[in-house]
Amino acid sequence: MSRAYNFSAGPAALPESVLRRAQEEMLEWHGAGASIVELSHRGPEFMQVAVEAEADLRALVGVPDDYAVLFVGGGATTQQALLPLNFAAAGQAADYVVTGHWGRTAIRQAAPYADLRIAASGEIDGFHSIPAREAWRLSEDAAYVHITANETIHGVEFRDVPDVGDVPLFADFSSSIASEPIDVTRYGAIYAGAQKNLGPVGIGVAIIRRDLLERVGQPRADIFDYRLQLANGSMLNTPPSWNWYMLGLTVKWMLAEGGVAEFARRSAAKSTLLYESIDGSGGFYRNQVDSAARSRMNVPFFLHDDALDQPFLEEARAAGLISLKGHRVLGGMRASIYNAMPLEGVQALAQFMREFQQRHG
Amino acid sequence: MSRAYNFSAGPAALPESVLRRAQEEMLEWHGAGASIVELSHRGPEFMQVAVEAEADLRALVGVPDDYAVLFVGGGATTQQALLPLNFAAAGQAADYVVTGHWGRTAIRQAAPYADLRIAASGEIDGFHSIPAREAWRLSEDAAYVHITANETIHGVEFRDVPDVGDVPLFADFSSSIASEPIDVTRYGAIYAGAQKNLGPVGIGVAIIRRDLLERVGQPRADIFDYRLQLANGSMLNTPPSWNWYMLGLTVKWMLAEGGVAEFARRSAAKSTLLYESIDGSGGFYRNQVDSAARSRMNVPFFLHDDALDQPFLEEARAAGLISLKGHRVLGGMRASIYNAMPLEGVQALAQFMREFQQRHG
Repeated sequence: MSRAYNFSAGPAALPESVLRRAQEEMLEWHGAGASIVELSHRGPEFMQVAVEAEADLRALVGVPDDYAVLFVGGGATTQQALLPLNFAAAGQAADYVVTGHWGRTAIRQAAPYADLRIAASGEIDGFHSIPAREAWRLSEDAAYVHITANETIHGVEFRDVPDVGDVPLFADFSSSIASEPIDVTRYGAIYAGAQKNLGPVGIGVAIIRRDLLERVGQPRADIFDYRLQLANGSMLNTPPSWNWYMLGLTVKWMLAEGGVAEFARRSAAKSTLLYESIDGSGGFYRNQVDSAARSRMNVPFFLHDDALDQPFLEEARAAGLISLKGHRVLGGMRASIYNAMPLEGVQALAQFMREFQQRHG
Repeated sequence: MSRAYNFSAGPAALPESVLRRAQEEMLEWHGAGASIVELSHRGPEFMQVAVEAEADLRALVGVPDDYAVLFVGGGATTQQALLPLNFAAAGQAADYVVTGHWGRTAIRQAAPYADLRIAASGEIDGFHSIPAREAWRLSEDAAYVHITANETIHGVEFRDVPDVGDVPLFADFSSSIASEPIDVTRYGAIYAGAQKNLGPVGIGVAIIRRDLLERVGQPRADIFDYRLQLANGSMLNTPPSWNWYMLGLTVKWMLAEGGVAEFARRSAAKSTLLYESIDGSGGFYRNQVDSAARSRMNVPFFLHDDALDQPFLEEARAAGLISLKGHRVLGGMRASIYNAMPLEGVQALAQFMREFQQRHG
């Protein structure tokens, strides 16, 4: 087949122009005599790539100067372990608000390093809503409060920044960074794996209020130390340079397309269309997430009869719509509609869903 | 310029056929409707890539069944922290043999987690030799003995596997894995960043004797737990899938070229030619490493007058020879001649060195 509309949750679709650029430069980058994936991370070629990627990411997300930007290998899960190591004293309280699978994952990474407290959890509700801020039980002595801004599997998203007072708010923005304006100043730290909205798999970013980097944290290897990473330009060791380069190309593409304001507009249009298709199906498709908490990025949905799951996936593939199978934790279907997914892809999915229902309803 | 001979120490040259294959498949992988960098790591397409890469790596390196193979994001430095976390009790002794810069780095990562002991160090000798095994002071209660099989910066390499009795031998093989036959059974663990001999930057491998994975280690995040990574097929979180794919292509290329026996032959030929060029220059070029410990992979050398360094680098680039600048720790020059560097590249470098000496000698 030719290139399909790819609804994968991550690794996810990349803009075709980014892939074509990477393809053109695969044998040689800008007359350097070698591909960027073959050149030293400390040489002038990659340094240019790295510096531009940071400047562009700062411009795209709106990162103030008093926040550091780090590029981190190993994924967002690794960062979930690094947060308490860097920002909590051993055994210090840390408050976690759990709104889905990835909140639980964050807890497992932090548990060895902090007095981990569940300030609120949506589990009792099947993770169909965001627990009301009034019901959170926050610790006065917490090192930080942790939220998952968007839950990739359960499809719930914070629509507002919760007020947690003077305690720094840490947020996993893996699946929604750069999809709408963020007021970075409301957060102590924002982190994200890149493989959803920022482009390629294999690299992540951390945006950290600089004063927090003065915290002592806990005994840890150099490689786990954000301060040392910052002092070394995110190159304490060899970084995933090709992935960094691809992130840079993707960020440049987002800036050229109009930035986060434009992607917020597109995300609203795409997600509205998809939820309307589900809600208007008379129960043939369903999504149970509270409308106030529905993710604009990840839309899980279920067919009224799971015997139709396999035909749905097969017929969708035949129609050029791939990676719609839900995460094994939930089953069913999931359409991830990150920045690289055009409205036309969601329109094609909505049309396919109507036709599938006509054939099988 | 067109593609040059690239002597970068890592990220390093990749086989051109691997780059061309990646280029061809950049927009779509094998009729899947998307690039491999865009597809779920848990889907059938990437699972095929991952399984083949492990099988091929096992065949290439000769990994017995009682050793696990893990693919790890974050680089070899991260693994240097994971070793004590997984294999030493808190505060247990661990013996380190330091033969250059990367041995020192390994110590910095492990120090927070073990009673770190320097069993031997080549520092007194300027890291120009491997300390004789008889002089090592090993602890009886050590969790493991750690060596750096090849030092990328100082250009020294173990020619024999040291006998350390029943204590497991852990070795950083980042810059020499797959360059000659390894008797894996002599080691408890072998680990490597891929960006030198195994291909792309952004991923590493760990080859671990399975019984060692039963050790309790220390409290640690799930993401730092080798046992959990093994139980999850190296996909406890989203792995750097594109990098894994590139590693797989590079390993397939090495198998097709004749495997480690062939690369041992080529490495001997390449390194012999280069050291002869240096030693035969009448002091114009010099390398001070003991001939018995000289690396076949990384050849640091110095011009007799460092005022010639910049002209050397500029004239080399004009001759299509790039990335010869030495690491900032040592200065001077360095030619890294991993598996992807053909003999013709080293011949071109040797000829250039002769001509440069004639012009400037």
